[in-house]
Amino acid sequence: MTGRKRTDVQASIDKAKVLIEALPYIKTFAGKTVVIKYGGAAMTDGALKRSVALDVILMRCVGMHPVVVHGGGPEISRAMERAGLRPTFISGFRVTDRETMKIVEMVMVGQINQELVALINSSGGSAVGLSGKDGGLIRAKKSGPATAAEPSADPVVSEVDLGFVGEVVAVDERVLLALERDGFTPVVAPTGVDEAGVTYNINADLAAGAIASALRAEKLIFLTDTDGILDKDDALLPTLNRQKVEQLIADGVISGGMLPKVRACLTALDNGVGKTHIVNGTIPHALLLEFFTSEGVGTEIVG
Amino acid sequence: MTGRKRTDVQASIDKAKVLIEALPYIKTFAGKTVVIKYGGAAMTDGALKRSVALDVILMRCVGMHPVVVHGGGPEISRAMERAGLRPTFISGFRVTDRETMKIVEMVMVGQINQELVALINSSGGSAVGLSGKDGGLIRAKKSGPATAAEPSADPVVSEVDLGFVGEVVAVDERVLLALERDGFTPVVAPTGVDEAGVTYNINADLAAGAIASALRAEKLIFLTDTDGILDKDDALLPTLNRQKVEQLIADGVISGGMLPKVRACLTALDNGVGKTHIVNGTIPHALLLEFFTSEGVGTEIVG
Amino acid sequence: MTGRKRTDVQASIDKAKVLIEALPYIKTFAGKTVVIKYGGAAMTDGALKRSVALDVILMRCVGMHPVVVHGGGPEISRAMERAGLRPTFISGFRVTDRETMKIVEMVMVGQINQELVALINSSGGSAVGLSGKDGGLIRAKKSGPATAAEPSADPVVSEVDLGFVGEVVAVDERVLLALERDGFTPVVAPTGVDEAGVTYNINADLAAGAIASALRAEKLIFLTDTDGILDKDDALLPTLNRQKVEQLIADGVISGGMLPKVRACLTALDNGVGKTHIVNGTIPHALLLEFFTSEGVGTEIVG
Amino acid sequence: MTGRKRTDVQASIDKAKVLIEALPYIKTFAGKTVVIKYGGAAMTDGALKRSVALDVILMRCVGMHPVVVHGGGPEISRAMERAGLRPTFISGFRVTDRETMKIVEMVMVGQINQELVALINSSGGSAVGLSGKDGGLIRAKKSGPATAAEPSADPVVSEVDLGFVGEVVAVDERVLLALERDGFTPVVAPTGVDEAGVTYNINADLAAGAIASALRAEKLIFLTDTDGILDKDDALLPTLNRQKVEQLIADGVISGGMLPKVRACLTALDNGVGKTHIVNGTIPHALLLEFFTSEGVGTEIVG
Amino acid sequence: MTGRKRTDVQASIDKAKVLIEALPYIKTFAGKTVVIKYGGAAMTDGALKRSVALDVILMRCVGMHPVVVHGGGPEISRAMERAGLRPTFISGFRVTDRETMKIVEMVMVGQINQELVALINSSGGSAVGLSGKDGGLIRAKKSGPATAAEPSADPVVSEVDLGFVGEVVAVDERVLLALERDGFTPVVAPTGVDEAGVTYNINADLAAGAIASALRAEKLIFLTDTDGILDKDDALLPTLNRQKVEQLIADGVISGGMLPKVRACLTALDNGVGKTHIVNGTIPHALLLEFFTSEGVGTEIVG
Amino acid sequence: MTGRKRTDVQASIDKAKVLIEALPYIKTFAGKTVVIKYGGAAMTDGALKRSVALDVILMRCVGMHPVVVHGGGPEISRAMERAGLRPTFISGFRVTDRETMKIVEMVMVGQINQELVALINSSGGSAVGLSGKDGGLIRAKKSGPATAAEPSADPVVSEVDLGFVGEVVAVDERVLLALERDGFTPVVAPTGVDEAGVTYNINADLAAGAIASALRAEKLIFLTDTDGILDKDDALLPTLNRQKVEQLIADGVISGGMLPKVRACLTALDNGVGKTHIVNGTIPHALLLEFFTSEGVGTEIVG
Repeated sequence: MTGRKRTDVQASIDKAKVLIEALPYIKTFAGKTVVIKYGGAAMTDGALKRSVALDVILMRCVGMHPVVVHGGGPEISRAMERAGLRPTFISGFRVTDRETMKIVEMVMVGQINQELVALINSSGGSAVGLSGKDGGLIRAKKSGPATAAEPSADPVVSEVDLGFVGEVVAVDERVLLALERDGFTPVVAPTGVDEAGVTYNINADLAAGAIASALRAEKLIFLTDTDGILDKDDALLPTLNRQKVEQLIADGVISGGMLPKVRACLTALDNGVGKTHIVNGTIPHALLLEFFTSEGVGTEIVG
Repeated sequence: MTGRKRTDVQASIDKAKVLIEALPYIKTFAGKTVVIKYGGAAMTDGALKRSVALDVILMRCVGMHPVVVHGGGPEISRAMERAGLRPTFISGFRVTDRETMKIVEMVMVGQINQELVALINSSGGSAVGLSGKDGGLIRAKKSGPATAAEPSADPVVSEVDLGFVGEVVAVDERVLLALERDGFTPVVAPTGVDEAGVTYNINADLAAGAIASALRAEKLIFLTDTDGILDKDDALLPTLNRQKVEQLIADGVISGGMLPKVRACLTALDNGVGKTHIVNGTIPHALLLEFFTSEGVGTEIVG
Repeated sequence: MTGRKRTDVQASIDKAKVLIEALPYIKTFAGKTVVIKYGGAAMTDGALKRSVALDVILMRCVGMHPVVVHGGGPEISRAMERAGLRPTFISGFRVTDRETMKIVEMVMVGQINQELVALINSSGGSAVGLSGKDGGLIRAKKSGPATAAEPSADPVVSEVDLGFVGEVVAVDERVLLALERDGFTPVVAPTGVDEAGVTYNINADLAAGAIASALRAEKLIFLTDTDGILDKDDALLPTLNRQKVEQLIADGVISGGMLPKVRACLTALDNGVGKTHIVNGTIPHALLLEFFTSEGVGTEIVG
Repeated sequence: MTGRKRTDVQASIDKAKVLIEALPYIKTFAGKTVVIKYGGAAMTDGALKRSVALDVILMRCVGMHPVVVHGGGPEISRAMERAGLRPTFISGFRVTDRETMKIVEMVMVGQINQELVALINSSGGSAVGLSGKDGGLIRAKKSGPATAAEPSADPVVSEVDLGFVGEVVAVDERVLLALERDGFTPVVAPTGVDEAGVTYNINADLAAGAIASALRAEKLIFLTDTDGILDKDDALLPTLNRQKVEQLIADGVISGGMLPKVRACLTALDNGVGKTHIVNGTIPHALLLEFFTSEGVGTEIVG
Repeated sequence: MTGRKRTDVQASIDKAKVLIEALPYIKTFAGKTVVIKYGGAAMTDGALKRSVALDVILMRCVGMHPVVVHGGGPEISRAMERAGLRPTFISGFRVTDRETMKIVEMVMVGQINQELVALINSSGGSAVGLSGKDGGLIRAKKSGPATAAEPSADPVVSEVDLGFVGEVVAVDERVLLALERDGFTPVVAPTGVDEAGVTYNINADLAAGAIASALRAEKLIFLTDTDGILDKDDALLPTLNRQKVEQLIADGVISGGMLPKVRACLTALDNGVGKTHIVNGTIPHALLLEFFTSEGVGTEIVG
Repeated sequence: MTGRKRTDVQASIDKAKVLIEALPYIKTFAGKTVVIKYGGAAMTDGALKRSVALDVILMRCVGMHPVVVHGGGPEISRAMERAGLRPTFISGFRVTDRETMKIVEMVMVGQINQELVALINSSGGSAVGLSGKDGGLIRAKKSGPATAAEPSADPVVSEVDLGFVGEVVAVDERVLLALERDGFTPVVAPTGVDEAGVTYNINADLAAGAIASALRAEKLIFLTDTDGILDKDDALLPTLNRQKVEQLIADGVISGGMLPKVRACLTALDNGVGKTHIVNGTIPHALLLEFFTSEGVGTEIVG
């Protein structure tokens, strides 16, 4: 060696080895569609936001087809408060009157979505923001209480009227496919419209599950603020199957905000999605850890 | 004839003849791209809105490629007022501080754009909303006063600082082409981003002109609230060329809000757009009149 | 409004509304194949001929795939008489000796077909004439009396020998598809050849039915000189199904020249054609009325 | 060898060697377009007709793109006589009144063309008959005497009015390309239409030359009843260039019916056709001799 | 005729007739894949080598997709002897120790394969040499004695260890298809690798059968030094079916080196190959005789 | 964090960061063709071999198109010695008589090439070995001394006859493109053939340069056993341009085995190759260091 320090070169070689370690994972996931529900701290912390944006770009660069679905987060409540409205939640669903729905749409489609699109694009990616209205992506209907006729409906336990909260009736994936084929990464704000043209606020977890189902995605990943699903002693459960999940729900171990995610996982598995994951989005590059290292993070729910 | 009234059939035959009259126009414009600047009364009157939506769908159905660019209209000022801000305009450009920019984006991308998309889709079309951020569609820079080095710059005569008002630096038309090829109609809200990721409010007339230029559109059409360009005696001027337009500007006959439209027309013609039109959007189906009948409406500016 | 009369504009708006009324029909039929049996007065009256040509061109322009099949009409008899031959018909089929066959082919392929092709092309369309020989389009065999083995054969009740009158054995639709894909409208003269290379005169109604079947057309339309199928009181029957049709045949209400059309309809429905229609070709633009207005004309026979 | 006679095998080996001899020629002409003017004895003699049909099929099978243009031959005169008309020729062009034009079209398009199509198809090929009207293939105008303004016009030396005899104004080759791409062999009857929709009789030699020019064919071949171009001592001239041809015309050695062929050759060479040939169609398989053996036949005119 | 001798022309016509005789065969085999096991005298005699090369090129030129698989022949033994090794065979399989395997690979891939590729290419073709390693074409495993669990395994009756002699486990035909689609003719040397990367010597007959199976070839042809399969009286058996073949094996009539060929034929037929042939490669152009003349040569084994 | 050690996760995050660091390089080189001359220690040391194989696979996985060209190395001399031949070199070129040429081809095509192909494939890649004969890849001619007419010829300073040593006359890149398009990585052994079918031994450096030129590669990289080009004080020269290179040759600083590499670089740059590199192949993952880290290794020669 001449004119360059051995130590520098060794550091570079070590980096190259990391790339080589990722090789089998890159080969495994090339050409596969992955739906990412983006939410929690990963949506509010600046460094984590940028980390997610880079992860998504890298996934695309090595041949994967990521689709990001985001929720509304604290921005909506803040905007409601600025407008003199008081946010109310029932069973984790935001009570959404007409005025609130307008704010939800403006914030989700015109602010949060655009911020994430801009972040991915300024980091070197090529994202396109979509709402459930664009290209007829999400057809919705008003959520209502489960009935005898539809006992296994969406878990919106609403004896009360949630207003413009909707369920997904159908996903028309053509606009996603058109964008993916030309190299764009779709970023979806989960609104929906019904046949009469009424706009609904859709739970982002359920929207992500429905989109993953329509695309028969390889994976559906929920970025959350916890390590995954924990047992009653708060120990992480790395892998669960349907039967185990049903038991944990029955036992009340899975509850609260984790419920719609877990239900979305089960529905997605029923619809042909390969695997579903609930991972800790507060870990930097959690997506890459999930895909390109052997360790993995969080809880995996399989069929 | 048996069992059906002659008069009914004659009415149907008369309708068929209208279709046949449209035939040469349909053949002429098949496969052609048309950029429509949507604004004014056509954006606020319910019947006119629906009329524009249907016109756009019909254009697509007979083989044309419409691209709609809309402005912000009175909604932005209303939203500003709700937020306790006072709208201010200089030379027709909205002074846009950081707080205003956020409102502009939310209203244009999250409300106006989504309304138009939903209207087209519920009327049978397949629209997809885009902002200038989506797919890197509009690269912008802060508008500044014309300098000696750039004397013929964008006509934002701003001795004062307009804040987050931007000019179009470049249009990346790939996302438009990807959507068009799969049968979607792009509806564009004119925001833009600069290299540093700063968001700008772009004049919709200028954005429409830049997009028409990038697509080398067959036509660029401005829907306004007047009949077109009027001479000093308020008579409509049906056709103008560059020389005539420059004279009318010099004479002060073209002025005010008509100026950016006219400038956008001239720039578009320079960039290979076929023809440009300023038409009265308060006439129902003004777009169809322009394309599918021999009469035409408004003023045509040619190269 | 300035410099243009309100009344003119209103007339234009009314025309635009007609186009908009056609929109749902255009969307419904885009990309669909329609086989039109062209005959009767529509083949002899100059204004009606031109009306059919324009209808066919418009159908193509809005995305449909029309295929026209024509008969021989009075031209053949005239040509026979000029050559000193006496036209003879049995059950509506022309007795066709060798000399007559030569005249049939020359008149159908070299005169009637070419006239219609030229009319469509000079009106702005792009038609290509075909016979059943071109590209092996129609494979035929000599028509014979129904036998015990083939009781439901073609309804040529010929105890006598009709000569070179043939039935369709098979349709090779590849030449139609090749032309359609490149934007040409096929116009078919119904001759056919058997394995030995013998040429046959094919009933145009049956040829149209066989071609519609091979293409699994959306619609098969017969242009006739009557309003459709009339009941025994001469009232038009707007919609019939198979069962009703069989009854009307049994009752002798459907008879004569209407029989091969109705049989062709039933066979086409059996072979996957969507709908079949018998419409009055003496009404100008009868085809457009059928497709682009809600009124419809004539009788529809459904499966 | 056991159980099969050596002599039989040797005969087979000799045949295989003939195929191998053809190999370099097959490779040379694969993918090349060849326009064949079919006329003379090859159109009347049954064995020669079949020989031409097989040659054309083989050409297609080994990857060439043959296009056949035929003339009217003695059939037209016979049909005229049957109709009580007297055929008249001036400078080799048939004087064509309205009645004659109708007969020309019926015989060429409805009889001769269809016979050749049927022969090729029953021999295993896939031909499609076209006239100059189909797909707007041949745009024509009335032939007139050469004028001062157009001194080098078409060589129809007509002080007298030839009636409906036309010259080629333009060839629209799209219908030929659509058929070729799908494996069909076009067989063209040389009629043409002018802008007003008037039908003309086009000299088949000149039509073949114009089609070869439009397709930038590799070769243009005239099948005639003579060995090629003979010198004043009746010796065959195997190869000629433009200069030599002009000299032979000036000397009167090339004259009569050979003139339009030779003129068509020169025009085709000017328009980018590779080589032109005048070969003896009375030799069985003259086309194959020209393409697949080293000997060649007839006269070759090169640029 | 002038200036050319009648006899010459007659000879040319006779040659053209041979081409025409081949026409139905060319049509039958166009687009079909044929796998040729090349071996025996055809690999050692200079004239026969060139004859095979030309036959393969002609097959490609008329639209077939030939794939050539060759064996090692006497060259390997010669190379072993030069290296001081003694060739040993058991049941027709070469005992292959590590040193021998290296020689087998060098001679088959680096010498015999390259000679054949160069011969085809210098004769006007476009061949590409492949081994079983290239593109993972042949996955192999060590051959072992038939066991109770796998009684009908590969017929290597080896109580003794044959060393690096392998059986085909799987064929990955993608590299063949990639080359064929672009007009190249694959020439395959039958090596194989197992999962651990160990190289094996594969019997060329069995490799050819496996490749024909993977490609669902129309035909599998073995070029041998005998006339085909002979009965016990040495008379050629032109056609055999599975039942007859099994009988002949049981009777000991089919034995020795013919056994792997016959077994490969039966396996190929089981896997969807159309027909299999054992032909005498010492007859010049034996492949063409098989394809392009009615006589055929050798024995055909059908399903 | 629960149930997993923080330190493990941190190590994974650090790995993810390495992937993210590579992102801009992956984006830069996606879709680009890179020709790698593989030689020296990287061909003999087991760990380095595997490192090169993995680097090539990773390059392909992230969208690059690597083409590997290898030399013969010490294996050829060893094989010659085993055959009783004495290796002789003049100016770095192996004197190659007929017997030697046969050994060169067997070792390069049948041994070294196959080993590298098998190594890449068993490591997860999809390589296909090619020689200069396959698909007519390398057309060669006998190398001769520079003449007055060709003063700047290939730098084989041969007053003596080198035998079957050839220069590249032309590269037919079609087989490379066919393989690349279907995802295969070509590995090329540098033999060549002349018009007469004579095989030549081609210097691998020059072959790599010619192939990079034909493909207009983005980069041409030589893997050597030194750090790159060193100045007269043995300090590495990281970047050189043509002028500087010529000076170093004139000064004798560049000499010996480095000369053909440097000459190949200059020729490649002349032919449109983007950049050329001489890097130290004894550094593990030297290729990845070159592409995916900012440090780079070796000497870069630019146009």
